[in-house]
Amino acid sequence: MIKERVLTGDRVTGKLHLGHYVGSLQNRVALQEQYDTFVFLADIQALTTHFDRPQLLGQNLNEITLDYLSAGINPDKATIFIQSMVPEIAELTVLFSMFVTVNSLRHNPTIKAESKNSSLDELYYGFLGYPVSQAADITFCKATIIPVGEDQLPHLELTRKIVRRFNELYSPILMEPRALISETPRLVGTDGNAKMSKSLGNAIELDSTKEEITFKIRKATTDPARVHKNDPGHPEVCPIYAYHRAFRSHDAPEIREGCESGSISCSACKQLITTALDQLIEPMRERRSYYAARPKVVEDILLSGTKLARDIAQETMSEVREAMGLNYFSK
Amino acid sequence: MIKERVLTGDRVTGKLHLGHYVGSLQNRVALQEQYDTFVFLADIQALTTHFDRPQLLGQNLNEITLDYLSAGINPDKATIFIQSMVPEIAELTVLFSMFVTVNSLRHNPTIKAESKNSSLDELYYGFLGYPVSQAADITFCKATIIPVGEDQLPHLELTRKIVRRFNELYSPILMEPRALISETPRLVGTDGNAKMSKSLGNAIELDSTKEEITFKIRKATTDPARVHKNDPGHPEVCPIYAYHRAFRSHDAPEIREGCESGSISCSACKQLITTALDQLIEPMRERRSYYAARPKVVEDILLSGTKLARDIAQETMSEVREAMGLNYFSK
Ligand code: SF4
Ligand code: SF4
Repeated sequence: MIKERVLTGDRVTGKLHLGHYVGSLQNRVALQEQYDTFVFLADIQALTTHFDRPQLLGQNLNEITLDYLSAGINPDKATIFIQSMVPEIAELTVLFSMFVTVNSLRHNPTIKAESKNSSLDELYYGFLGYPVSQAADITFCKATIIPVGEDQLPHLELTRKIVRRFNELYSPILMEPRALISETPRLVGTDGNAKMSKSLGNAIELDSTKEEITFKIRKATTDPARVHKNDPGHPEVCPIYAYHRAFRSHDAPEIREGCESGSISCSACKQLITTALDQLIEPMRERRSYYAARPKVVEDILLSGTKLARDIAQETMSEVREAMGLNYFSK
Repeated sequence: MIKERVLTGDRVTGKLHLGHYVGSLQNRVALQEQYDTFVFLADIQALTTHFDRPQLLGQNLNEITLDYLSAGINPDKATIFIQSMVPEIAELTVLFSMFVTVNSLRHNPTIKAESKNSSLDELYYGFLGYPVSQAADITFCKATIIPVGEDQLPHLELTRKIVRRFNELYSPILMEPRALISETPRLVGTDGNAKMSKSLGNAIELDSTKEEITFKIRKATTDPARVHKNDPGHPEVCPIYAYHRAFRSHDAPEIREGCESGSISCSACKQLITTALDQLIEPMRERRSYYAARPKVVEDILLSGTKLARDIAQETMSEVREAMGLNYFSK
């Protein structure tokens, strides 16, 4: 039986952190055991916001690949590829753009959020078309399972619409993907901000040393109501409790109780999570140092993954050309 | 000395007619003697309006190639290529789209004209981006001379802006094209409509037989004020006079005088232009029948032209990748 294909990826705008681990990486590591897993480095998508500093992409590309490998994405099981090196994605983007209206794009929540401040007019054309390019990412490799957060559902819905429209206009050769909603889509930042994000300075990176973890957890926000150890706390407002739930879930009820009853100190609570995070990251550090010392191996992983993706892309494009009657010389 | 490169093309939405001959083909036939001339079959651009009937493209592609060859475009001097078979154009389109605002596109006159009836929202995303794709067509082959009608100037201006922006953002590797405004941009239809157009049924195609020319000229509108032969006419409202000016310019002053003074009958006037058009089209018919009988030769012309275009496109894309720092593995 042919395995279903899963596609996931990351915009190469910065190194990955625990938020990515919880939101997607650990899920991918599980998925690769069951599915034909494709993971892509979205450098073209990163250009929608980073076109004026493309030199960042190359730097991040390498770091994120190390993040993937260190988090446990296994190149023998998953295909890691670089978006810009599969030009068929651009070809599909251009073809899909012919039958997608501006209207359907501007009502996409991400575009809407962005154009709240600026008007539609001030958006970059490529940014407005971000969901079209996403449809191309998904369809070129005929991925049917897309792990996404709730907030990504409208994007996927547009991809599904594009696929149906294409299949109806030409020939039913594209696969309609479905969402696999991940359980813990978002991890709170160490400052209590709803989203852990490198640019907010509230992230714990996947290549953190033990000292960095210790330092960041020590500085992390806790429930401000807990001045003295015996003050009852409100774990639901505390990022440390969120980390317990995400990384030490077996023990989380006990932490909650201890916090609410004032029987555990914040520093003891933080000590527990520091140890857990260090234990989580320790094997990542090991794998990272293995690969970081072998740049040629990493390059080969990217090149062979990209080659496989490209072979599939070329096959799909030839089907697309045939479906649309653009295969002028193959008869 | 390296010759400058000229780029022209046609959307493959229908066979070519005298309007195309006057507006661009005869100009290209002259240009190919002086410049490195590229002529492309714009099938992707045709999709912006014909995405729901792509099967037309393949049919038209062959006809238009025959139109080119019969009109005197010489495959030994000019490169004829197919847009969709140069995927680098799609790649450039996607890259350029990152730094072009929706605003600059919607104020383009063609888009504006189209969105007069429908709102911006109802436009297709690809149609809105038509000038971006045009910039990719022009820049991939580093064409510097673009023969255009006045109405195309704003498109070209946007291409020039995109080139300057790219060169400024990354590295000055793209060439800023300039317009070569053609003298007789538009030919009136046989019904007096300002534009000769196949869909209006007022066109004389380049593969017309003598009988078809005779018939169409006989049915053509003339100055309605001329009921009797001696009635003074108004040549400026008569399509036949426009044809005299376009195809028998040496004799046009005499026709004007004869018409205005009522000394020439409409039927004699039409006879003169019929003969002239038949003489113009006769060698086209001959070249057409030569090539139509040799489909393999035509296919080779398209394939080798497209291959040359593609080689150039790959070179340009590799410079573009380097300029943008997307050439991750070439160091
Ligand atoms: S005990 Fe733990 S969960 Fe409660 S406020 Fe302190 S750090 Fe947060
Ligand atoms: S004489 Fe010729 S130019 Fe004058 S109205 Fe007749 S056809 Fe037209």
